Amino acid sequence: MAGVFTQLDLSPNRLEVARQARAARGDLIDLTSSNPTTQGLLFPPEVLATAAAKYWTTRCYRPDPHGDLAAREAIVAYYARRTPPLVLTPDDIFLTASTSEAYSLLFALLADPGDNLLVPNVTYPLFEYLAALRNLELRSYQLDEDRDWRINARSLRRAVDDRTRAILIISPHNPTGAIVEHALATLDLLGVPIICDEVFAPFTYAAPSTPPLAALHPDLPVFTLNGISKLFALPDLKLGWIALNRPARAFAARLELLNDTLLGANALSQFLLPTLFASGEAFVTAMVERVRTNLTFALQRFADHPRIHARSPSGGYYLFPSISGWDDEEALALYLLEQGVFVHPGYFYGDVPGCHIMLSALTEPPVFVAGVERLCVALAG
Amino acid sequence: MAGVFTQLDLSPNRLEVARQARAARGDLIDLTSSNPTTQGLLFPPEVLATAAAKYWTTRCYRPDPHGDLAAREAIVAYYARRTPPLVLTPDDIFLTASTSEAYSLLFALLADPGDNLLVPNVTYPLFEYLAALRNLELRSYQLDEDRDWRINARSLRRAVDDRTRAILIISPHNPTGAIVEHALATLDLLGVPIICDEVFAPFTYAAPSTPPLAALHPDLPVFTLNGISKLFALPDLKLGWIALNRPARAFAARLELLNDTLLGANALSQFLLPTLFASGEAFVTAMVERVRTNLTFALQRFADHPRIHARSPSGGYYLFPSISGWDDEEALALYLLEQGVFVHPGYFYGDVPGCHIMLSALTEPPVFVAGVERLCVALAG
Repeated sequence: MAGVFTQLDLSPNRLEVARQARAARGDLIDLTSSNPTTQGLLFPPEVLATAAAKYWTTRCYRPDPHGDLAAREAIVAYYARRTPPLVLTPDDIFLTASTSEAYSLLFALLADPGDNLLVPNVTYPLFEYLAALRNLELRSYQLDEDRDWRINARSLRRAVDDRTRAILIISPHNPTGAIVEHALATLDLLGVPIICDEVFAPFTYAAPSTPPLAALHPDLPVFTLNGISKLFALPDLKLGWIALNRPARAFAARLELLNDTLLGANALSQFLLPTLFASGEAFVTAMVERVRTNLTFALQRFADHPRIHARSPSGGYYLFPSISGWDDEEALALYLLEQGVFVHPGYFYGDVPGCHIMLSALTEPPVFVAGVERLCVALAG
Repeated sequence: MAGVFTQLDLSPNRLEVARQARAARGDLIDLTSSNPTTQGLLFPPEVLATAAAKYWTTRCYRPDPHGDLAAREAIVAYYARRTPPLVLTPDDIFLTASTSEAYSLLFALLADPGDNLLVPNVTYPLFEYLAALRNLELRSYQLDEDRDWRINARSLRRAVDDRTRAILIISPHNPTGAIVEHALATLDLLGVPIICDEVFAPFTYAAPSTPPLAALHPDLPVFTLNGISKLFALPDLKLGWIALNRPARAFAARLELLNDTLLGANALSQFLLPTLFASGEAFVTAMVERVRTNLTFALQRFADHPRIHARSPSGGYYLFPSISGWDDEEALALYLLEQGVFVHPGYFYGDVPGCHIMLSALTEPPVFVAGVERLCVALAG
């Protein structure tokens, strides 16, 4: 059945209630943050201030349903530098208020109420609400934990039906860290449009890079999503984008109308984008390095732990280890909370066999180290 | 039948094609602008620059599904200063990326596919798309031109049925300039939630002020929409809001979930809002004065014109005169284009008896004066 937004469950989340109570008692280590600005990862403020100062004296709003041309040119240049390169033109780019808005526009572009979208099980729990806003059904395809969370092609084929309008792929995947490194024959066979979320693209770990899925599948319509929230640690400045590869251009006229209806992209943030790309490299490198260092530390600590079983992720911010000796993820998360460490239980992200937790390697290193130690001790007994 | 976004007509607009061709020949006066930044109305850049400079050194993004507290407090204070005052708390305010996004959120909050919303005939042509995004039906209620475009209560009662989820009221109205100055008994009788768009609230002309509709109807759920685009002439900075009166609070929990799903409001724009309210008064006064001066000039020029019949608007940016001696609005707009003046034909806004054009008194005064003169000459023959 299609999701119906006005009928969504709003009952309070037991774990969140417990977290607030535990936090009030003090000495709680939060290992779940996805917000760089609270983890000391701040894009150089002087670069932002200098670039923004120019905006105020020259501002003249000329709304464009695609967004500002200079910003789009900077995005085109970014994709040309990827490995392998993805060749686009500024007309292939649509700027939006965020990746969430980009998803929302694409759901409206591609699907009508009662249609369905395929999403990975597990995934970040945002799509339920975005799909319900369009009364769309979400159908799951599986990721195989024992194959480093690679997409299970058979489950993808089983999930598709004649009302499937798009397949969502997150690469690097949140929270498993899997990267789609090679073309998937099943996707070409199915021929369904792909929405590929690459917001964690710069964050690689075991994999050498994140190949743009649109470049791996040049004959499928692929809508690539990204934005400045993760890429430049600027979630506050609200800028995302949709990049259409050649087969996706058939949807461009309608997407133009859609984006023109909302025109959500902030003009100052668009104005800043070329500067972010031009001056952000050292900051992004340092941020990626922090995540890598944290991941390495945790993987080493977990390597000989009897109960924490973590795989080396291809990329992303997160670890999604399985925990043996437990079978109730909520009970596990509540127990760890009592021990002073907050992690997300696996069921926040879907429903896979075993008991999982999520921890974020974006966390400030001293906090991350202390949290991982506390986790190891709490689960040792 | 409910609107279906993926089936909307995308055929090119004949008038827009003609406008571009005519503009290329030069000497075309555009009387349609709603964009203050292209009309020389720029919020003092030094105020924006100084306030924004503080942001970069203190930024730490703490997303709140309601939006930034200081911004909401400034909005609450703004409503307390209105006539009559509207008493709200910060919890009654939800910040959004724009008024368009606010509409989109409210359409999702209040209605499911197949439900309907009542909109005035005539109105700004945005709702068709926003409604189609939710597969909602739009039903029209009438405005009576000979009663200064007041809402026709009988047509409102006729349009409501058991699937009506909201009545949209724009006050000051775009493009007729009508202001709802007194409570409407019909609205209380119908008991349907109201979405009231007050983006033109400071722009009054014949009326002394814009009373908040939520204050006139304290027993009905009223969602008041506004934002910085018109109020402070900052359409580029993308900030809107929804204010809930007491009966609308029943919807707050679900609206919180909705706004949390998109989190579209830019944090810098939210940070600037208290400064805009504190330092914007002189600028807003000057802007309102410009519109009033233009309106007075045009109304005087049209007063003894044989074919242009304009009513003195209660407020807003626009004039929506009827033109006698013509019966095809597109032919009229194309003729005026040939004569070097671009106005919107009435059918852009709906379908009312007679032949109407829309002109914007936001236009820079010398251009506005020249355009009005050209209009008078073109229609004199």
